[in-house]
Amino acid sequence: MMESAIPLHLETTRSRHKRVPSDYVPPYPSFVARYKPAVNRVVMAYFGLQYRGAAPAAVAGALARIAERFAAADGPSYWDRAQYVDQAGFSNVISVGYWSDVASFDAWLGPAREDWTGKDCEGVGTFIEALRPTVGRFETLFSSLGRPEGVAVIGDGMSGEVQEHAYWGGMRDRIPLSQTDEMAPGGRPELVRHGARLIVKAHDNLCLIRSGQDWSDTEASERKLYLEDVEPVLHEGMDFLRDEGVGIGCYANRYMRVLDADGAPTEKSYGQSWWKSLAALERWAESHPTHVRIFGAAMKYLSTLGPAARLRLYHEVTVAAAEEQFFEYLNCHPKTGMLAAVETVGA
Amino acid sequence: MMESAIPLHLETTRSRHKRVPSDYVPPYPSFVARYKPAVNRVVMAYFGLQYRGAAPAAVAGALARIAERFAAADGPSYWDRAQYVDQAGFSNVISVGYWSDVASFDAWLGPAREDWTGKDCEGVGTFIEALRPTVGRFETLFSSLGRPEGVAVIGDGMSGEVQEHAYWGGMRDRIPLSQTDEMAPGGRPELVRHGARLIVKAHDNLCLIRSGQDWSDTEASERKLYLEDVEPVLHEGMDFLRDEGVGIGCYANRYMRVLDADGAPTEKSYGQSWWKSLAALERWAESHPTHVRIFGAAMKYLSTLGPAARLRLYHEVTVAAAEEQFFEYLNCHPKTGMLAAVETVGA
Repeated sequence: MMESAIPLHLETTRSRHKRVPSDYVPPYPSFVARYKPAVNRVVMAYFGLQYRGAAPAAVAGALARIAERFAAADGPSYWDRAQYVDQAGFSNVISVGYWSDVASFDAWLGPAREDWTGKDCEGVGTFIEALRPTVGRFETLFSSLGRPEGVAVIGDGMSGEVQEHAYWGGMRDRIPLSQTDEMAPGGRPELVRHGARLIVKAHDNLCLIRSGQDWSDTEASERKLYLEDVEPVLHEGMDFLRDEGVGIGCYANRYMRVLDADGAPTEKSYGQSWWKSLAALERWAESHPTHVRIFGAAMKYLSTLGPAARLRLYHEVTVAAAEEQFFEYLNCHPKTGMLAAVETVGA
Repeated sequence: MMESAIPLHLETTRSRHKRVPSDYVPPYPSFVARYKPAVNRVVMAYFGLQYRGAAPAAVAGALARIAERFAAADGPSYWDRAQYVDQAGFSNVISVGYWSDVASFDAWLGPAREDWTGKDCEGVGTFIEALRPTVGRFETLFSSLGRPEGVAVIGDGMSGEVQEHAYWGGMRDRIPLSQTDEMAPGGRPELVRHGARLIVKAHDNLCLIRSGQDWSDTEASERKLYLEDVEPVLHEGMDFLRDEGVGIGCYANRYMRVLDADGAPTEKSYGQSWWKSLAALERWAESHPTHVRIFGAAMKYLSTLGPAARLRLYHEVTVAAAEEQFFEYLNCHPKTGMLAAVETVGA
C-alpha cells in the first residue's frame, strides 16, 4: 500500500497541486521518517569548529566539551559528527544535534552557546547554525529501511512506501507546507555584529539540505560502482556548489565524511548546503549535469536492484521561516557557512 | 524582455501554479509560435499510408492525390511529409496538414476522407489521425527563430524569448489550459467498426507530441556531434517508445524522416507520438535514461553555444479533448497508430 509522504495529521485543503497525478506510482520504493503527532517542531543544530593545518590543542577539548553537553540534561536525542576541508583550506569538524523537544533545546542552548561561540577557543573558529522548523517545513527520504540518519533518527519510525518521490518536484511535494505555500524567499541575508560574534540574519524560506550516502554495506561490484562511478561525479557536483554555488542561490556547501566515536572516518558521507530557496535547489538539482547524472544513475540503479541495493541513500530538506533560524560565527574565515552569503564581512 | 509562453489573451485567473517562481530566468533563449487572437482553434491532420516491401503502384497515386487535395480550396495553410519503417516492417508515409480555419477543414475533410480511408487503395493501408484543439490546448517550443515547423508555420509569427522552458514542467506550463486544469486522462480507447474502417474513440486529454530536429545548417564539428553523439541516443529513445511504450502510456511512436517535394529524405526528422496523458509524457521525458541524456546534452549545448548553435530543435504538444480527436484506419496492420491502444482488433 502506497502512503503519502505527508502524514495524515498534516494534510490540509490544498491551494497548490502536487506535480504528479493521484494515480502516480514510483518505479522503486522509498520511505520517509514519521513523527508522533504531538511533535510540532524539531531542532537541527550544527556546531562547527575550524582550523588550518594541524589541529591545535584546543580542538580535542572543544569536541569533548560539546559531546559532554550533548549527553547532559536537555541535550539532543541524537547527534553525529562529520569532517571536511573547506575551500579556504580549513579543516572543519561539525557536530550536529537533533531535538524533537524544542523546550529542551531552548533550555540547553544558552550555556552551550556561551561555551561554543561566546569566547575565544585559542585560535579555533567556532560556529552554530541551527534551525527549529515546524514539522510542516521539512521532509526526509530514504532508499531503504533499517538505518535512519539525521533528523529521522529522532522520529517515531519510518513510513511504508511513499508516493511522492522519483520525479522532479517530489522534494517539494513531500513538504507539508507545499500544499498551500510557494515558499518563496524573502529578503537578503544580513550581518549583525555582537563584538567578535558575527550573527547572520537570513531570510524567510531559506533552505537546508543534508543529503547522505552510506556505502558500508556494499560488497565488491556495488562498492566499486559507487566508489569509481558514482562518488567522483557526486564529488564534482559538491565542488561546484562549494566554489560556484553563490551564483545560483547556494550560499554554502559542505561535502563531509561522517566520523565514528573515535573520530575516524566511516563509510558514510553527506553534503550539507544552505540555499536561498527551495526553488534554487530544485533548479540546480534538475539542470546541473553532475546532479542529473547522479539522479539518473540512482533511478536506474534502484529500479534495477530495488531492495537488493546495499548502498543507502537519504536526505532531509528544510525550508525555514526567518524566526526559525540561527547563525553565529566566532573567529571564522569570511567564507564560512552563511558568512559567504552576506555582501562583505569587514575586519 | 522575457515574455510568458502563454499569450496575453489566454491568460486567466489561475487555480494551478506554474512550476517555477515568477523571477525564474532560463539559461538559454527559446521561442514559441504566436497566433492572432481571432484564431481559437487549429487542426493537425496526419494522413498516412502503409505498405510492406517495395511500394505498390498505388502509392505514388495516393500521395499525388492527397497533395492535390491539400492544394485545393479549403486545404491546409501548410503541410509536410515524412516517412519511416514501423515495428511491423511496414513503410509508412505520412502527409500532415495544418489549418487555422476549422470551417475550411470541416468543408474540406468530407471528400478527402472518402478518398483516403473510404475505399480500398489496392493493398495499401491508409489512415487519418487528426486533432482540432482550441488554442488553449497546445504549445510549441523552438530553439531558434527563422524556420518555423509544423503547427508554428500557420501562426502569425514567433514570440520573443519566453520564460517557461529549460526546466521539467515547462511543457505543461506553456499550455494555457494548465492554468486551471490538471488535464487528467478520461476513459480508455475504444474501437468502433464501420465495415472495413476502424475508428478509434480515444479519451479526454489524449496527448500528441511532434518533436523535431533539423541539422541541415550544421557544419563539420556540430554535425558530427549531432549525428554521432546525439542522434543514436535519440534513436534509442524512439525505439523504446515504439516497442515498449504502451506500458508507460505511450500508445504509439513514429520516428520519421521529413521528405522533400520529390520524396527524397531531408536533414530533418521528428518523433511523433500519442500518449495517454501529458503526465505520462512528462514521466517518460524526466526519467527515461535516453531522454534525460538528450535533455541534459541539449541544455549544456544550448547554454554554451546559444544563438551560435546551428542545430534547430522544436516541438509541439497538444492535449486534446475527446471531441477534438479523429482516428480512422483502413487495411492497416493492428499495431498502427492508435489501433495499438485498443485491447484487441479482431479479424
